[in-house]
Amino acid sequence: MQSYKIAVVGAMGAVGSEMLVTLERSGLPIAEVVPLDIKENEGKSVAFRGRSLTVRSAEKGAFAGIDIALFSAGEKASELLSPVAVEKGAVVIDNSNAFRMDPAVPLVVPEVNPEAARKHKGIIANPNCSTIQMVVALKPLHDRFRIKRIVVSTYQAVSGSGQPAIADLSQQIKDYVEGKEITPQVYPHQIAFNALPHIDTFLDNGYTKEEMKMFNETRKILGDEDIMICPTCVRIPVFRCHSESINIETKKPLPHPDEIRKLLNEAAGVKVIDDVKNNSYPLPIYCKGTDKVFVGRIRKDFTISNGLNLWVVADNLRKGAALNAVQIAELLVKNNWVKGDK
Amino acid sequence: MQSYKIAVVGAMGAVGSEMLVTLERSGLPIAEVVPLDIKENEGKSVAFRGRSLTVRSAEKGAFAGIDIALFSAGEKASELLSPVAVEKGAVVIDNSNAFRMDPAVPLVVPEVNPEAARKHKGIIANPNCSTIQMVVALKPLHDRFRIKRIVVSTYQAVSGSGQPAIADLSQQIKDYVEGKEITPQVYPHQIAFNALPHIDTFLDNGYTKEEMKMFNETRKILGDEDIMICPTCVRIPVFRCHSESINIETKKPLPHPDEIRKLLNEAAGVKVIDDVKNNSYPLPIYCKGTDKVFVGRIRKDFTISNGLNLWVVADNLRKGAALNAVQIAELLVKNNWVKGDK
Repeated sequence: MQSYKIAVVGAMGAVGSEMLVTLERSGLPIAEVVPLDIKENEGKSVAFRGRSLTVRSAEKGAFAGIDIALFSAGEKASELLSPVAVEKGAVVIDNSNAFRMDPAVPLVVPEVNPEAARKHKGIIANPNCSTIQMVVALKPLHDRFRIKRIVVSTYQAVSGSGQPAIADLSQQIKDYVEGKEITPQVYPHQIAFNALPHIDTFLDNGYTKEEMKMFNETRKILGDEDIMICPTCVRIPVFRCHSESINIETKKPLPHPDEIRKLLNEAAGVKVIDDVKNNSYPLPIYCKGTDKVFVGRIRKDFTISNGLNLWVVADNLRKGAALNAVQIAELLVKNNWVKGDK
Repeated sequence: MQSYKIAVVGAMGAVGSEMLVTLERSGLPIAEVVPLDIKENEGKSVAFRGRSLTVRSAEKGAFAGIDIALFSAGEKASELLSPVAVEKGAVVIDNSNAFRMDPAVPLVVPEVNPEAARKHKGIIANPNCSTIQMVVALKPLHDRFRIKRIVVSTYQAVSGSGQPAIADLSQQIKDYVEGKEITPQVYPHQIAFNALPHIDTFLDNGYTKEEMKMFNETRKILGDEDIMICPTCVRIPVFRCHSESINIETKKPLPHPDEIRKLLNEAAGVKVIDDVKNNSYPLPIYCKGTDKVFVGRIRKDFTISNGLNLWVVADNLRKGAALNAVQIAELLVKNNWVKGDK
C-alpha cells in the first residue's frame, strides 16, 4: 500500500497545530510528516504520535519528495510556495484565501461536494471557516428543499485570527482583572467585552471580505449561482468555535422541525443539539476539539411561508480549517485522486 | 410651576441606579425623589444630586403622595405594587414585562409613538431593551419606506439580567485568569468566552420570550400589525450595551446608503457612526453611559430588491431602560398628561 509524505506549512500556527493533531488521529497511510514554518521557527520541534519532529524553514527547496502539502501560513506564503510544491509533484490543500475563487481550483467540503476534488490541477482550496460550518449544516436542507436565500449573522472566535489574537484576548482579560489599561494588539479595537462587526478588510460595497467569502464560497461549493446569501460577520470575545445565527428561505415547503432534526442528524458531519426545555443547544465553549457541526434552535420562521432558523456552532480550527483539510487529503487518497488531472 | 414627587422602585438595581443618574440630569421639575427597594436594602442610601437619600422598603404604604413611580424591580413587584401606586394617584412607568402587551396599557418609546402615552389609565409600559433600540433606529425607515420584514440577531450584554449577572461575568473572568474552575451562577451555562442563544425562557414555538417580545412589542409600538419580525436573541460576554445585526426588507425602493445615513442622523435619538474605511462603527464598549441609538454598517442587501443591513448599538440600561422611562415621564409632564385618562 502506498504511503504519503505530508508537509504542514505553518505547523506552529493555530491551524497548523490542529492539522498535526488531526493527522495524528487520521487513518491516512503516512510515510512521514514534515512540519514547515517561518525561518524564525526553524529547528524548533513539534510533537507527532509521540515523537518529536524538527520544524524546517518553509522555503522553495523544502518540497522535494512531498506528496501532500497542507498550507495554513497565510495568503502570501500560499501564493509564493504552493506553485513550487505543485511543481515538485505535491498536491496542495490550501487553507488561505489565495485560490478559493479561482475557477481552475476546486473548493471542497468533503461532506458537501467531494466530486469537485477529483479534477484538481495540483491545488485544492479549503474554504473559509465560517463558510464550511454553514454549508455542512445547510447542504441536507438545500438538497431536499432548495434554499433561495440565507441571512446569516456570525459570532466568531478570536482564534480565527491565529495565535496572536488568542494571546491578545488573554492579555486583555488579564489586564482587566488587574485593573490595567487595555491596549489592543491585533484588532483595531478592544475585543474583550466587545463585539466587533468587522472581520477582514472592508470592500467598496460596504461588506467585509469575510462577508463576501461567505457569499461567493457558498455558491461555489453548492454549485448554485442562484442561492442568495446576506452575511454580517462579527467577532466576539470567545477563544474558539464560531457560532452562526442562520435564517433560510426555501423554495419547497418545510416539514415540522422534528423532521428537520432527523434529517440533519442523519447527515454526514452534523449533530443536532436541540432540547431547549433542558437548556440544551450548541455552545462554543463545549465544541472545542470536536469534529462535528452542531445545530440547534431549529424553529420555523413564521414571518414567511418557507422559513427556518438555526443556530450552528463548530470548532473553527478543526472542521473550519484543519480537519476539513485533512478530510480532503483522505478523500484524495481513498479515491486515488492525489495526482488529479495534472 | 408644579413639581413632582418621583419614586424609583428597585433603586439599587442595575436599571434603578441608572434611573437615578438619568433623573439627576433631567429637566423634570422634581420636588422629591423617593428610592424604594427590597426590604433587605431598607435604610441603605443612594446618592442624588450631591445628597444622600435613604432607601425605603417597596411596600404598599410607600406610594402616598407619589406623582410618578418608575418601576424596575421585576414582573412580580410590578404586578403587586403598581395597582397600589396607581390607586394612590401616581402614574406608573413600568420597565417590566408585566403590562407591555395589555391592550389598555400604552407601550411607549417617546421618539417613536409619543401620542400613545396620552390616554394612559395609570400605567405606561417601558418596552424591552432590545426592542427599544431597534424601533428607534427603524422608525425613520419605516415611515419613509414601509418595512415589511425584519430578520434580527442580537448580541446582548449581561447587564440585561441585572447586577447579579454583571457580578457573575466578572467572577468568571477572574476565575479564568486565576486558573480556577468557572461555576456559572446566573445563566444555565458559563457566559465568559461563550455565546448563549437563550435569553428569558423558552416557549412552545421554539422561540424565547425575549424573541417574542421583539416581535410583539415592535408591532405594538409601530402600530403596524403587518410588519414581520424574525428574531434570534443571544447573550455574549459583554458587560453593557446591546448590539443588533438587523436585516430589513421594505415595500418602497431604498435610496443610496448615503441618503439613509442622512435620514437616520436627522432622526430623534439616533446617531450614525459609519466610516468603515477608518474602522468606525458602533461598538458596545464605547456606548456605556450614552443616550443615543448608534447605527452603522449601513449597506444594501443585494440579495433582494429592497433590502438593507444595519448594526445597531445602544446602552441597554440607559435608552434600553432607565432613559426611556425618564423620557416618558418628561413627555407626560411636558404635555400635561401625568393624570392621563384616569
